[in-house]
Amino acid sequence: MDNDRREIELEQDKNEILDLYKGKKPKALIQKLSSMNAADVAEILDELKVTDATVIFRLLPKDKAVDVFTYFDSEQQQDIIATSTDADVEYILKEIFFDDKIDMLEEMPANIVDRILEKSTPSERKLINQFLNYPEDSAGSIMTIEYCSVKKTLTVKEAMARLKKVGLQRETIYTIYVVDDNRKLEGIVSLRELVMADDDKVIADIMNTDVVYVNVYEDQEIVAGVIQKYDFVAVPVVDNEERMVGIITVDDVIDIIEQEATEDFQKMAALSPSEDEYLDTPPITLAKHRIAWLLFLMVSATLTGSILQRFEDYIAAIPSLLIFIPMLMDTGGNAGSQSATLVIRGLAVGEIEPKDALKVLWKEFQVSIMVGVVLAIVNYGRIKLLHPNQDPKIAITVSISVMFTVMLAKLVGGLLPIGAKKIKLDPAIMASPLITTIVDATSLIVYFAVAKMMLGI
Amino acid sequence: MDNDRREIELEQDKNEILDLYKGKKPKALIQKLSSMNAADVAEILDELKVTDATVIFRLLPKDKAVDVFTYFDSEQQQDIIATSTDADVEYILKEIFFDDKIDMLEEMPANIVDRILEKSTPSERKLINQFLNYPEDSAGSIMTIEYCSVKKTLTVKEAMARLKKVGLQRETIYTIYVVDDNRKLEGIVSLRELVMADDDKVIADIMNTDVVYVNVYEDQEIVAGVIQKYDFVAVPVVDNEERMVGIITVDDVIDIIEQEATEDFQKMAALSPSEDEYLDTPPITLAKHRIAWLLFLMVSATLTGSILQRFEDYIAAIPSLLIFIPMLMDTGGNAGSQSATLVIRGLAVGEIEPKDALKVLWKEFQVSIMVGVVLAIVNYGRIKLLHPNQDPKIAITVSISVMFTVMLAKLVGGLLPIGAKKIKLDPAIMASPLITTIVDATSLIVYFAVAKMMLGI
Repeated sequence: MDNDRREIELEQDKNEILDLYKGKKPKALIQKLSSMNAADVAEILDELKVTDATVIFRLLPKDKAVDVFTYFDSEQQQDIIATSTDADVEYILKEIFFDDKIDMLEEMPANIVDRILEKSTPSERKLINQFLNYPEDSAGSIMTIEYCSVKKTLTVKEAMARLKKVGLQRETIYTIYVVDDNRKLEGIVSLRELVMADDDKVIADIMNTDVVYVNVYEDQEIVAGVIQKYDFVAVPVVDNEERMVGIITVDDVIDIIEQEATEDFQKMAALSPSEDEYLDTPPITLAKHRIAWLLFLMVSATLTGSILQRFEDYIAAIPSLLIFIPMLMDTGGNAGSQSATLVIRGLAVGEIEPKDALKVLWKEFQVSIMVGVVLAIVNYGRIKLLHPNQDPKIAITVSISVMFTVMLAKLVGGLLPIGAKKIKLDPAIMASPLITTIVDATSLIVYFAVAKMMLGI
Repeated sequence: MDNDRREIELEQDKNEILDLYKGKKPKALIQKLSSMNAADVAEILDELKVTDATVIFRLLPKDKAVDVFTYFDSEQQQDIIATSTDADVEYILKEIFFDDKIDMLEEMPANIVDRILEKSTPSERKLINQFLNYPEDSAGSIMTIEYCSVKKTLTVKEAMARLKKVGLQRETIYTIYVVDDNRKLEGIVSLRELVMADDDKVIADIMNTDVVYVNVYEDQEIVAGVIQKYDFVAVPVVDNEERMVGIITVDDVIDIIEQEATEDFQKMAALSPSEDEYLDTPPITLAKHRIAWLLFLMVSATLTGSILQRFEDYIAAIPSLLIFIPMLMDTGGNAGSQSATLVIRGLAVGEIEPKDALKVLWKEFQVSIMVGVVLAIVNYGRIKLLHPNQDPKIAITVSISVMFTVMLAKLVGGLLPIGAKKIKLDPAIMASPLITTIVDATSLIVYFAVAKMMLGI
C-alpha cells in the first residue's frame, strides 16, 4: 500500500521534472532536483530518453551529480562519461568513493577505462590497477580504502577531532580502526563507543582487540557471512601480512547476498550464471547462457530413451504401462528437486555442512517413506477411479513404483549436493535438471523391474 | 582459505572451553569466555550438549550473557529461560533490545510467553502485546523502538550530550530522528553530520527534511527494498497518522532478504515455504511441507498420461516414436524453467515489472528461436549418429518437435509468472513444477501433431 504511495510520488516528480524541462525553466528544475534524494533522481533519469537524461544530469549541482552518478547502472555511467568534458570526468572521479570507482571501471569498455586512468594521479592509477587485479568476487575487488584509522595513543577528544577533519571523505566513520605504524590492525572502536566515552580516555583503553577481519583474497560470499553473523556495519580487510588495506560495508553485503542468491537460482534452473539485468541483456547473450546446459541435458536424456527402448517389449505386451510413465518421471523429478533445493539452500546459508551428510540421509529416508506411502495410496485410488477396468495388478505396479521412485529421488536429491560440496564442486549445479535426468532413468528401471515381478512379463 | 582459519580457531576455542569446563577451572573459563565475541560463544554453546551449554552459559558475566542470548536460536532461548531463575529472566529481558525480545516472544510457546510478560512492567506489557498484534512480516513486527530522537530546536552540542546520555540503550545512534511534540517525523540527522557540524549549529539547520519512511503495516520485503535502494543504516517506521513509532535497521534487512530468497527457492521447488532450519525440523513436518504439491502435480500429470493414451495408436504404428518422449518432455521442462526462473527472480528483485510483459514476450520469442534451432540441429545429428538405421523422417519429426516445444516452453515460462503477478498471485508458485506439467502436455501434443503430418499416420 505504501509502496504505491512512493511510486505515485515518484511518477509525480518525474512529470514535474519533464514539465520544467520542456517548459525550459532551468532554475525551477535545478531547485526541484536539488531537493530530491539522489537515488530517486537516478531512477527517474533512467526512465527518460538518454538525450533528455544527459541534459538534465548536466543541470545538477556538482555534488548532487556525483551522488546520482553512483546510483546509475554502468550503461548510464558510460553514456555520461562518453559525453562529458574532461573537467567533468575529473570532478566525478575525484568525488566518488573508491569502491564505487572500481565497480564502475570493472564494467567499462577499455577505451573509457583508459580515459579515466588518464585523469587519475599516478599514485591513484597504481592503486586502481592493483584493485582491478584482485580476483573477481574477492574481498579485495569490493573493498573500499576510505576508512578512518587512528593510533591507539590518541585520546577520545583527539580522535573525534581527527574524525571531524577526515570524516567527509570516508565511506563510513561508524567503525574506527586502530593500526600501528606498520598498518597492522590492533583493534577497533565504534563511533558509538567514542561518543559515549569521556574526552580524556585513551583509545588503547576503550578499543576492542578481539577483531574479526577477512583476508583480501577471500570470496565475497564468506565476507557476507561474517558481516551477517556478527551484525557488523563494516568488516576490515587485511593482506597476507595482516596489514589493514580496506573495509567492506554492510550495504555492499546486501548486494552480494542478493547476487549470490540470484546465481544459485540460475544454476539450479540450468542457466549459466550472469549478473546482467534480464531486460538489458540482448537475446543472443541470453540464448548463450541457456544453450550449454540444455544441450547437455538433451543429450544425456538419450540414456532415458535407451532404457525405454530396452523395455519396448514390455510396453508392446501391456500397452497401458505407457500412460503412467510421464506421471512417474515427473513425480520423481519433483520429489528429488524438493530435497535438493532444501539441501542446496541449507548449504548456501550455512545451516547444513558436509559433515551432516548422514543426518541428511537419515532425515530424507524417513521423509521419503512417509511421502512415498501417501503418494502410492493416492495414486492407487486415482487409477481405480479413472481406469476402473484396469487390471488391479497394474495399479499396484504403478503405486509401488511411485513409492520407490520417490524414495530414490529424495535420497539422490539430498546427497548429490552434499557430495558436490565435499569434492569442492558447486552444489547448485547438481540441482533439479541433473537430478531430473538421473531420476528419470532410475524411475524407468524401477518401474519395469516392478512390472516384471508383478505382471510376470 | 581464511574461512578455514576461522573454523580452526573456533574449534580450538571450543576445545579449550571444554577442557577448562571439565577440568573445573571456572575462573579461567570465565576469562576465556569474556574475551570472545558473543556470536562465537553462542555458536560454540550450540554445538555442546544442552546440559553443559546451560551450565557454561550461567558462568558468563551478565552483560555477555545477554549478548550471547540474542545470538541463540529460539530453541536454545527456551532451554535457557526454562531453567533460569526469575531474577535471571528479568535481567535478560531488561537488557536485550526490544526487537530481539519481540522476535523471541513470537517463537516461544504460550507458557513461556506468559512467564516473560509477568516479569515486564505494565507499560511494557502493553507495548509487547501491541507488537505481537502486528501482522506477520509487517514492518511493525520487526521494528525496534530503541531509536534516538531529538527536537529540532536543540544545538549540535546539546544533541551530542543527549546521545551520550541515552545512546547505550538505543539499537543504533547512527541516524537521529527529529520529531515534534506529537511525535511527527520532521527530519533526520546522521551521527556523521552531527560529528562534522559546529557545536553551536541548530539541528533544524542541518537536518535533512526529505525523509524516506515506511508505514508500520507495510510488508518486510518492501522495507528491505527501501533500505537497499537508498543504502540506509536504518529506516524510520510511522503509523497511519504519520507519527514515528520505530526504526528498522540494516542487519534485520539482511535476514529478510535471505529469508525471502529461501522462500522463493522453496516455492519454486514445489515446497510449502517454511522458516525452520532443515536439520531442526522433524521428518513429519518436512513431509507435510512436501506432500501437498507432489500430490497436486502427480494428479495433474494424469493429463499428460491421458494425452499419451489418446495417441497410443501412433506409437503402436511407429514404436520408435516412444524413445524420444522423455528427451522431449525434459528439454521442454528445462527450457521453460530457465525462462520462468529469470522472470521470477527479475520480478523479485524489481528488475522486471508486470508492465514489461510485452518486452519479455518479444525477448523470449527471439531467444527461443535461437535456442530451438540449435537444439533441433544437434538433435538431428545425435539421432543420425546413434540410430543410423532410423527413418530420417523420424529424426526430422523429433527435431521439429524439439524446436516448437522449446519455443512454447519459453513463452509459457516467461509469461506465466508475470500473469501471476498481475492478478496478485505469487510468481514463484507458478514456477518450474507447474510449468513442467503444462509443457509436458503441450510437448506431447506438438510431437504427435508433427508426427501425423510428417509420417502420415
